[in-house]
Amino acid sequence: MKIALLGLGTVGRGVVEVINENKDSIAKRAGQPIEVKYILDIRDFEDEEVGRLIVKDFNIILNDEEIEIVAEAMGGVEPAYTYAKASLSKGKSFVTSNKELVALYGAELLELAKNNEVNFLFEASVGGGIPIIRPLNQSLTADEIYEITGILNGTTNFILTKMKEEGRNFEDVLKEAQALGYAEKNPEADVEGYDACRKVAILSSLAFGEHVSYQDIPTEGITKITKEDMAYAEQIGCVIKLLATCQKQDGTIFARVAPVLISKSHPLAMVNDVFNGIFVKGNVIGEVMFYGRGAGKLPTASAVVADIVDAAKHKGTNIISLWNREKIELKDKDQVKVRYFVRLQKDEACIENVVKEIFGDTEEVQSPYNEYAFITNIETEEQFAEKVSRLAGFTIMNKIRIEK
Amino acid sequence: MKIALLGLGTVGRGVVEVINENKDSIAKRAGQPIEVKYILDIRDFEDEEVGRLIVKDFNIILNDEEIEIVAEAMGGVEPAYTYAKASLSKGKSFVTSNKELVALYGAELLELAKNNEVNFLFEASVGGGIPIIRPLNQSLTADEIYEITGILNGTTNFILTKMKEEGRNFEDVLKEAQALGYAEKNPEADVEGYDACRKVAILSSLAFGEHVSYQDIPTEGITKITKEDMAYAEQIGCVIKLLATCQKQDGTIFARVAPVLISKSHPLAMVNDVFNGIFVKGNVIGEVMFYGRGAGKLPTASAVVADIVDAAKHKGTNIISLWNREKIELKDKDQVKVRYFVRLQKDEACIENVVKEIFGDTEEVQSPYNEYAFITNIETEEQFAEKVSRLAGFTIMNKIRIEK
Repeated sequence: MKIALLGLGTVGRGVVEVINENKDSIAKRAGQPIEVKYILDIRDFEDEEVGRLIVKDFNIILNDEEIEIVAEAMGGVEPAYTYAKASLSKGKSFVTSNKELVALYGAELLELAKNNEVNFLFEASVGGGIPIIRPLNQSLTADEIYEITGILNGTTNFILTKMKEEGRNFEDVLKEAQALGYAEKNPEADVEGYDACRKVAILSSLAFGEHVSYQDIPTEGITKITKEDMAYAEQIGCVIKLLATCQKQDGTIFARVAPVLISKSHPLAMVNDVFNGIFVKGNVIGEVMFYGRGAGKLPTASAVVADIVDAAKHKGTNIISLWNREKIELKDKDQVKVRYFVRLQKDEACIENVVKEIFGDTEEVQSPYNEYAFITNIETEEQFAEKVSRLAGFTIMNKIRIEK
Repeated sequence: MKIALLGLGTVGRGVVEVINENKDSIAKRAGQPIEVKYILDIRDFEDEEVGRLIVKDFNIILNDEEIEIVAEAMGGVEPAYTYAKASLSKGKSFVTSNKELVALYGAELLELAKNNEVNFLFEASVGGGIPIIRPLNQSLTADEIYEITGILNGTTNFILTKMKEEGRNFEDVLKEAQALGYAEKNPEADVEGYDACRKVAILSSLAFGEHVSYQDIPTEGITKITKEDMAYAEQIGCVIKLLATCQKQDGTIFARVAPVLISKSHPLAMVNDVFNGIFVKGNVIGEVMFYGRGAGKLPTASAVVADIVDAAKHKGTNIISLWNREKIELKDKDQVKVRYFVRLQKDEACIENVVKEIFGDTEEVQSPYNEYAFITNIETEEQFAEKVSRLAGFTIMNKIRIEK
């Protein structure tokens, strides 16, 4: 089977490498050999073996009837979206690692694939090589999923792990991550949680069967987490993780990306460094977790190539995927129930009494600093915010959601 | 789509429950409603709703052309094997949670399914509800798998967790596990590692594509592990887990079930209580882990029903599965390389010198008992056994493989 690859960046190169390196086992699994016939890229790569496969005009790929699968590894919404629509409409399966494309147009492209009896596959768009999209679609089919919570961004997890283990501050570790190539020069997409937000939008759309817009998901990053927060976490037997979550609560769906204090005994607590972990809860299976490298050239290529194999095996058959274009109205974020860990500067003697009066019975946390720290009871975000507003005059060092 | 269920024991009841409870979402995923038409059982269940579905004669099921899928939850090799062959030969897909049946006849039944353009599916036979068979077959297809290591038995993991956390001895915790229903009255299949052995035989056959006989896999249980071993483990930053493993080493395949000391930072170290964890290493993806409840009525039923959905979706198409009938010759177990943690009773003053002379430079472990404890260098099982034989005259308290 002949395929075309769009984009010869890091992931694209990985795809070519994997297809060459594991040629025989891939042919066995796909039922036939897989061969890259074209690579679309604006560059020439004249000095390299792959240079002879380079084309500049997407129409060459589109109009070649031999090409049955198009694999996209360019990133960005355009021209990926246009190419995806054109490929699927021409009866070619389309495989992508592009979380932006999938988060925005997944429902539409799945429908287009179905109408053309081909497949739109995107295992690599979430969790890199970790099998999560296919298990959600094909393994957890007996279950009604009511929660997915994951560490979906390797860069921020690396930063939080280093901050915890080495007692260092955010900016300091971010610089190291940038030097190591784990974080971009402009790290915003990672550290502000935008990357995780797109990924959890994809997962929730698949889990609940209707479209979740990533723009609707309240998203907080890790830039405000300090080494002092880490020290508190340790003291109360917790770790701080950037969790992306979607949950069914009282019949409505709620999603969020935010740093959260979780107990050290939670399976996600041991997901460290650049690893990702995705925790899924279903009404039959209970809890399952998927763990592995969430990014990187080869892990991502592994998922792209597995999708290519799947598309080859399912030639002429659309693999059912439930993700309608109908949009899910997410629960009002102010009505979501939460508990917070709060740190106040101890600038007034009466602080404990004030906290008690506003928050009622809270759980006090011993502070190694000149602070008063406590954990609230469960209440809505709105109720919490209202109480916090009454702390005017006090200096709030930080407030972090806690689940334990 | 009409299906038949063989056996209304714990798992069988779970299957009926799940199909009723999640009827709508299952119908969506399968593309059509799934209905249990017959249940084969020797009992009557006259007082129950399901009583009307009971049949005593398998031929009623076999000869009913409406039945397209047969789900088996009886356990044991016979008559499950006969029913599986008959069903597949008649063009009915066969779904099972029966690890014994799959470990013995997986290759043959997969071939039979292929020849009849139906499917033989067995997700529930390993890891209960954890998706592992389908990910191996369909997600990790770009990879050459070179290792699978897992905690595959919930009962022994519960016992080891309790021994560690509560400083109790094996027999003591076993009694509690029996009282709680986690361990059988005759606990041999679990505590001697036989259950894990069958499961790792299935995983290795799928990963390496040829048949691994479970009878060939060297298997040790956990009956010799003591609370003193647990104390040592803690001291050197390790935990003791019953690990089932298969690995490609220098071109040959090696498998084993045994208790092993692993570092606390290993992802499998946090798999506690009755949970299972399966660690897979591939040449592209790196490491991935699957975690969840490895047994129990509903988790197991979740996997059985997911297989039923998959069989319904793939009506008329055999899902390629690579597990040939050709048998793999496993590596000679004496030639496998290992490190051991060894505890000797300190009954002679010169013990340190003797150990040094026999084992060379070892890593000494501080002992809180009247013992001399150390960790060997990496060598073959044969070399280690030869050295141990030279310790005649000393009392060996225990020796446990260590990987860290």
